[in-house]
Amino acid sequence: MGDPAGIGPEILARTLALASLRREARLVAVGDPEVLERAARHAGAKVRFRVIAPDAFDESAPDGRGMALLASTEDAWGSFEPGHPSAGSGLAAARAIEVASGLALERRAAGIVTAPISKKALQAAGYPFPGHTEFLGALAGAQETRMLFAGGRHRILLASIHVALRRVPDVLTIDSLTRTLEYAASALRIFRWGGRKTVAVLGLNPHAGEDGMFGDEESRIIAPAIERAKASGIRAEGPFPADTFFAHRGQDAGLGIVVAMYHDQGLIPAKMGGIGGAANVTLGLPYVRSSVDHGTAFDRAWKRGKLSPDPSGLVMATRVAVDLAARAKGRRLDWTWPSSASST
Amino acid sequence: MGDPAGIGPEILARTLALASLRREARLVAVGDPEVLERAARHAGAKVRFRVIAPDAFDESAPDGRGMALLASTEDAWGSFEPGHPSAGSGLAAARAIEVASGLALERRAAGIVTAPISKKALQAAGYPFPGHTEFLGALAGAQETRMLFAGGRHRILLASIHVALRRVPDVLTIDSLTRTLEYAASALRIFRWGGRKTVAVLGLNPHAGEDGMFGDEESRIIAPAIERAKASGIRAEGPFPADTFFAHRGQDAGLGIVVAMYHDQGLIPAKMGGIGGAANVTLGLPYVRSSVDHGTAFDRAWKRGKLSPDPSGLVMATRVAVDLAARAKGRRLDWTWPSSASST
Repeated sequence: MGDPAGIGPEILARTLALASLRREARLVAVGDPEVLERAARHAGAKVRFRVIAPDAFDESAPDGRGMALLASTEDAWGSFEPGHPSAGSGLAAARAIEVASGLALERRAAGIVTAPISKKALQAAGYPFPGHTEFLGALAGAQETRMLFAGGRHRILLASIHVALRRVPDVLTIDSLTRTLEYAASALRIFRWGGRKTVAVLGLNPHAGEDGMFGDEESRIIAPAIERAKASGIRAEGPFPADTFFAHRGQDAGLGIVVAMYHDQGLIPAKMGGIGGAANVTLGLPYVRSSVDHGTAFDRAWKRGKLSPDPSGLVMATRVAVDLAARAKGRRLDWTWPSSASST
Repeated sequence: MGDPAGIGPEILARTLALASLRREARLVAVGDPEVLERAARHAGAKVRFRVIAPDAFDESAPDGRGMALLASTEDAWGSFEPGHPSAGSGLAAARAIEVASGLALERRAAGIVTAPISKKALQAAGYPFPGHTEFLGALAGAQETRMLFAGGRHRILLASIHVALRRVPDVLTIDSLTRTLEYAASALRIFRWGGRKTVAVLGLNPHAGEDGMFGDEESRIIAPAIERAKASGIRAEGPFPADTFFAHRGQDAGLGIVVAMYHDQGLIPAKMGGIGGAANVTLGLPYVRSSVDHGTAFDRAWKRGKLSPDPSGLVMATRVAVDLAARAKGRRLDWTWPSSASST
């Protein structure tokens, strides 16, 4: 559901109204029934909800009597002001996350798709997490995660995420980058994208440093991490100059995942396709998790008129999660490397 | 001509063989006659050269007797080994630059289009410039220049260029960034792209710093520079998160120029369209200057077989220069701001 004061409930209702999506997988909404029913009416989404008990979750296949909805809260409507983040909206968002996480950890759900939440609201409600990923990671006991963008023309994995540009060169280490390359190789195997495909690594500096003229992180950190990954059987290549990579190598059939060194280096190409052009996938959790690639847009939530929020980011995230869950065949995802599963 | 040991002569011959391009403007090749004739034969380019005297330059209109060629050297062939940068190839490249620059500074040419050169060869020949732009700037007495990418979906101007990523936050100052915004506004006016269009400024950090959570350069440097530019009549806006900018705002009809803070932030989106998708335009010289956005490719120069180098970067650079020269109407370009020309 996401933060109920934001656009989450409306885009969720509009996404679940798509019959084509509902035919692809057993989808279950997790959220507050009254909030979601109001959101559906508000957004003019043709979806009827059918509240199911947590116990009935496993038999929640579509049966023509409406979209299965698992109530994570019952009384959230009234506890927040639409369009404004607050402790009330943060609490309802957090409860939905906890319920969905529990289902995935118990392996009753193959994956979770998340709508946008507000860090501010979450913290006002007493949850000290900067975002979904950290919250889900804590619930799953995951030591670390990585952010991958998928569903667009390229699969792009980030070596660093929410770090000031000034600090990026310092947070990149041979160890952390090697681990990132292992995540890439694990993802190629787990999601059957091609275990023998290339993990292409971008440089940090202009022209990948041009032989050390503009920075030395390529020779000091990136190349050693690539060598280390290769030694453990990963087909890593690079570092490639980031500006020409997509024009020169982006179409290679053997390209599996592109590893970007920092947020905008990866997200500018990932988002060139527009909203709904790619979904944010978390690597490191034991289940599939995808997310919209946009925020709560409080200024456009629950408004009257023509501004009904665009659900294409959530539609893309849902399609990607359904695809990944099918590819992973319902298995618990194992991100260790080298892994006993690597021979499959 | 570029460095004669690289792909410059071949792509120049192939570019000048395009009748459509030659109809658009009075083009004159500047280079070594024997090198260019051999390159044309080598690349199978249907172009005949007609060597003209420097004095005859002004009457060099196409007359059916071949492509006008101004000899910057006469004996370069034999002074270098094709495919290998050397003092000989660097000297021939430098002479072509000097001759072309002289014509443009004397206002006998409206602009210059440059093919790739080798910094190494140039320096071996005794020219201590890291590239064309610095060389042309020194010849023109230009104190500073800026790099703009044009011809693609967006016009993108760089606030910093060949700087290690680690140093980017330190080279960005309120003064230099304000000056960059003035260059953007001058370009909108000089090239008649719309003097009232927006100069959109990207942030430096992820999510443009998200209210200071990931870096403070947005509030400390970028916002003050935008305010200062606005105070002098420039329609500057931002800082915008770079990753979502092209999806959210890239299609605005009122968008004039996007200012990127560093090399890859600007060049990744500029080059997503592939080779020949955009040309590099120098702002700050008194004439129009565009350049290919790729290198000398010594490993593919003067080769036999199917590998004839792709001229589309030089074709794009030529088209952009022809367009800009027409837009500037042959005037000397004045980059001061505010300028007396700003009322035109």
